[in-house]
Amino acid sequence: MAAYFNMETLKFLMFNVHKLEELLLNERYNAFDKESILLFLQSVADFSDQDLYPIFKEMDEKPAKFSEGKIHVHPKIKDILIKQGELGVIGASFDESMGGLQLPATVMHAAYFIMEAANNHIPGYAGLTAGAAHLISSFADKKYHDQYVPNMLSGEWSGTMCLSEPQAGSGLSDIKCSAKPLDDGTFLIKGHKIFISGGDHEYAGNIIHLLLARIEGAPAGTKGISLFIVPKYKISPDQTLVNNDVITAGDFQKMGQRGYCTAHLVFGDNDQCTGYLVGEENKGLLYMFQMMNDARIAVGRGGAAIASAAYYASLQYAQERQQGRRLLSGGRKDEAAGPTLIINHPDVRRMLFLQKAIYEGSLSLILQSSIYHDREISEKENNNHWNLLLEFLTPITKTYPSEKGKLAVDNGLQILGGYGFCADFILQQYYRDIRIMSIYEGTTGIQSLDLLGRKVLMENGLVLKTMLAEIQHTISEGKMDERLRATAKELEDQLPLVEATLAHLIPIAMKGETEKFVSDATLFMEAVGTIVVAWQWLKIGITASNVLKSSDAAFSASMLKNKLHTMRFFYKYELARNKSIFKIIQSDEVLTLAEDDAFPD
Amino acid sequence: MAAYFNMETLKFLMFNVHKLEELLLNERYNAFDKESILLFLQSVADFSDQDLYPIFKEMDEKPAKFSEGKIHVHPKIKDILIKQGELGVIGASFDESMGGLQLPATVMHAAYFIMEAANNHIPGYAGLTAGAAHLISSFADKKYHDQYVPNMLSGEWSGTMCLSEPQAGSGLSDIKCSAKPLDDGTFLIKGHKIFISGGDHEYAGNIIHLLLARIEGAPAGTKGISLFIVPKYKISPDQTLVNNDVITAGDFQKMGQRGYCTAHLVFGDNDQCTGYLVGEENKGLLYMFQMMNDARIAVGRGGAAIASAAYYASLQYAQERQQGRRLLSGGRKDEAAGPTLIINHPDVRRMLFLQKAIYEGSLSLILQSSIYHDREISEKENNNHWNLLLEFLTPITKTYPSEKGKLAVDNGLQILGGYGFCADFILQQYYRDIRIMSIYEGTTGIQSLDLLGRKVLMENGLVLKTMLAEIQHTISEGKMDERLRATAKELEDQLPLVEATLAHLIPIAMKGETEKFVSDATLFMEAVGTIVVAWQWLKIGITASNVLKSSDAAFSASMLKNKLHTMRFFYKYELARNKSIFKIIQSDEVLTLAEDDAFPD
Repeated sequence: MAAYFNMETLKFLMFNVHKLEELLLNERYNAFDKESILLFLQSVADFSDQDLYPIFKEMDEKPAKFSEGKIHVHPKIKDILIKQGELGVIGASFDESMGGLQLPATVMHAAYFIMEAANNHIPGYAGLTAGAAHLISSFADKKYHDQYVPNMLSGEWSGTMCLSEPQAGSGLSDIKCSAKPLDDGTFLIKGHKIFISGGDHEYAGNIIHLLLARIEGAPAGTKGISLFIVPKYKISPDQTLVNNDVITAGDFQKMGQRGYCTAHLVFGDNDQCTGYLVGEENKGLLYMFQMMNDARIAVGRGGAAIASAAYYASLQYAQERQQGRRLLSGGRKDEAAGPTLIINHPDVRRMLFLQKAIYEGSLSLILQSSIYHDREISEKENNNHWNLLLEFLTPITKTYPSEKGKLAVDNGLQILGGYGFCADFILQQYYRDIRIMSIYEGTTGIQSLDLLGRKVLMENGLVLKTMLAEIQHTISEGKMDERLRATAKELEDQLPLVEATLAHLIPIAMKGETEKFVSDATLFMEAVGTIVVAWQWLKIGITASNVLKSSDAAFSASMLKNKLHTMRFFYKYELARNKSIFKIIQSDEVLTLAEDDAFPD
Repeated sequence: MAAYFNMETLKFLMFNVHKLEELLLNERYNAFDKESILLFLQSVADFSDQDLYPIFKEMDEKPAKFSEGKIHVHPKIKDILIKQGELGVIGASFDESMGGLQLPATVMHAAYFIMEAANNHIPGYAGLTAGAAHLISSFADKKYHDQYVPNMLSGEWSGTMCLSEPQAGSGLSDIKCSAKPLDDGTFLIKGHKIFISGGDHEYAGNIIHLLLARIEGAPAGTKGISLFIVPKYKISPDQTLVNNDVITAGDFQKMGQRGYCTAHLVFGDNDQCTGYLVGEENKGLLYMFQMMNDARIAVGRGGAAIASAAYYASLQYAQERQQGRRLLSGGRKDEAAGPTLIINHPDVRRMLFLQKAIYEGSLSLILQSSIYHDREISEKENNNHWNLLLEFLTPITKTYPSEKGKLAVDNGLQILGGYGFCADFILQQYYRDIRIMSIYEGTTGIQSLDLLGRKVLMENGLVLKTMLAEIQHTISEGKMDERLRATAKELEDQLPLVEATLAHLIPIAMKGETEKFVSDATLFMEAVGTIVVAWQWLKIGITASNVLKSSDAAFSASMLKNKLHTMRFFYKYELARNKSIFKIIQSDEVLTLAEDDAFPD
């Protein structure tokens, strides 16, 4: 079995770096202990080994495909969805009262991370089903929960989110899909939805779409959008399923994640499509943001998972492939020793450490965001604090693993040379698969606008201040450890760069020059994302150092030393690039506003 | 017809920035003038429009494929090769006496750039044929030239370079393919060769392989490698073609450039394969380097060409697609104006200018290297000077367009959002195609070793000194123009960074710590590549500024202003990242040597 993730590292991050056992003291989670959680994750790992990884390449080679009105997916999907229901991963973080396991989201994300590293074409089916079910449970009338959610958590029915339309992708204010109120309180839905992940396939007994539409007469823009439950099959009074006029018009063939179907759906072409309003009218986007925020963490997780799998694939190759000679004094090649394993070449090691630094840092960030989420919902007395931190981290947790994950996989492919480009080797598939992550659920540009244009300014800067205080807290801790003092200082030196950059930008926002203010938001995201992951690496370093000093033999000394080494790698090679980036953002030269007389040509 | 390159920009770079007409004064090229060259390029552009671009997507969807002992390629390839022969592009830069047009290589590269932007799956066939023919003409006995070259330049026969073997990719010293001398002066060839681009296909009347092998008893390592002509079909005394025991064992299915076949060839499995020695025994690698150096420029050109095509595809989309709103004061969206074209969003403009800055800068660099090549072979009195410059630029010209071209295409794909990931749109194909460029003909790691470990040290630093003097010359020119003074100064400020970095590195080399010396060679390549392209942009800026000041109406003022604007974009967003990179290289912390007790795990 190919290695695609490392359980020891995952354990170390969850229980040592992020102190999951402290979270388990909260009432909501106190049915679990470390042992039961590790058992759960091991069962997910076994399932991933046995059911997910073996069909990964096949799903790419025989992609999900639309023909004769249906989307055909890999034949194992049916069993896999049911098994995921049985394992409890679909309802992992749901309340027990709703049929879930009531696990921390942190554990749910860890489980999905394992499954996605094994086969990123599959977990989306369950993930969106859970997200849709969660929306119903949270905001819809209880009767809808009872009608739909149990069958969704069991894996028999699927769920989706239906946002994009042909004319409205990132711009949700232009949604045209309409909802006409009927006398019985239901609505007649009409419109097209595109890019619907898991939108239709032959193995779902029913598909429950959570759909954004505009009720006739609703206000223009995002304020007039409502959320509806629109099942593929309606439940008739006698409990049989009847067609609900949801037609699959086609699919999207993609460069990657080809086994994961993407549908074009037509609702109400025969004026027979019923939708059930979720919550109140015109509050659809507000509700949908719950699902979108969760989905954003999930997308980052997908990026980290693919980067993990690519790392282990390229590491294995580097440990087996001989090529070239070690270099001796004067640049002579060590002909006496003969060909060397390529892992001995400094540039190959650089590419390996870069991947490791990116994927483990990303994974740690995902767990960090999930911990904040779990604390927010389980510690009522302090939940605003955790919410502020999660708000700040969400766009970064979506973007860093997606963007830097591409870089990581690119380096993994490069290690294989010509073989990396060949279909017989798996790296090229990871390379194609991961490319969607910086587009899904709001592109990097959109996330960067959210970070700089919204989160930084939110609550008069309180969100940012709270985040920086957390980072400063870790820095102070790091400074007390001889081995980490220099690293902590390097992170501390970044904070004035952020301040100086904002001192440059905020006055521009104040003057009302919004486009200019956000014009380099993507660079701001790049630099701040690196700081946040450097913070995670310092946390990892502090933990590794502490465990090394203790008599805790749960982890090998070599693993812990490698964590400290990779931390230094991240600081030397990645964090050190930030200074120039912040300087670019502080430049007064404006080159990308449409007002310029210059234009791309 | 889709735009995939810009003839005005190409003309501007060739004739204005790189002053091609001055080169044409040299005796070798004086049969040509600007007009005849533009006619030639226009005929190549027409051919590209009519024959190459229309089958670009189809070649990806129905890749070249091995079955029943043969590799099947697109059926139009046969005609296309013949047409390329008729157009003269295969023999474009060959001496007239050898059946070529005796055009400057600069013009040949411009022609291939156009063809590759139209369809990068095709020009490799002609390019390698020309390269193989050139090796024969340069180093083999005249009789071989007469036997093979005319049919190669006409497009009837193909040529390849056969270097890699299953156990020897980048490490040519481990080549095992053997050559046994026969009494008639020919050799019996035996061995496997892999990754042979254009290695076999049904439409070549014959395929002339230029193959590296080891003559029995030759010294170990690269000093014992000889070069052979090994035709697929031997020419018998009665001029008929007879099988030469070259068997196609299979092909490589790839992530990109799928229409361009890649073969696994077996030579002499029945001990019937004849090879003809080129030049002297054991000097094979020296000869092959002529072809490899040319091929390295060609790979960079391929990267620039794909980046060009991706740029124009994403530009067209950005000019047609409406999405989102302009941002008004206070971050409000301009609802009154309604949806805007996405080209008006600063982040989209940033992605467009980034692509333009990378592709035009890369194209200029390719032309610069070609001009040096042309001067080297046409100005005997000063050819060492031009050779030194070309030596320095070759690894950069290969690497910068390949590596930064990936970044450019990545940004092009991102502009299309979800559509960019879909097979119906062309960006994803460019994204896959360009990925091979940083692997072909020596990976980025190998090129970086060449730059830092060889070129920088070569002739006691004379190569580097000569290069820096050229750059300084442009800086001095730029400083005399008010509009360019600041830009020139920014470039000048980079030179002490190079010096400081080398002052750090050279003593390490002197101490004999070669692995440590080159451990960050790839970062050195990244930063120096950016300086070299910044130098090209300053040249472009100087020329644009001069043309704007003159009464020359050959180019529109808006095009010239956009060049100046894009130059500033490159300096603000790309060159400004260098300072941090040089600082990283100067760090004393060593993290990637195999001697460390830490290792990737």
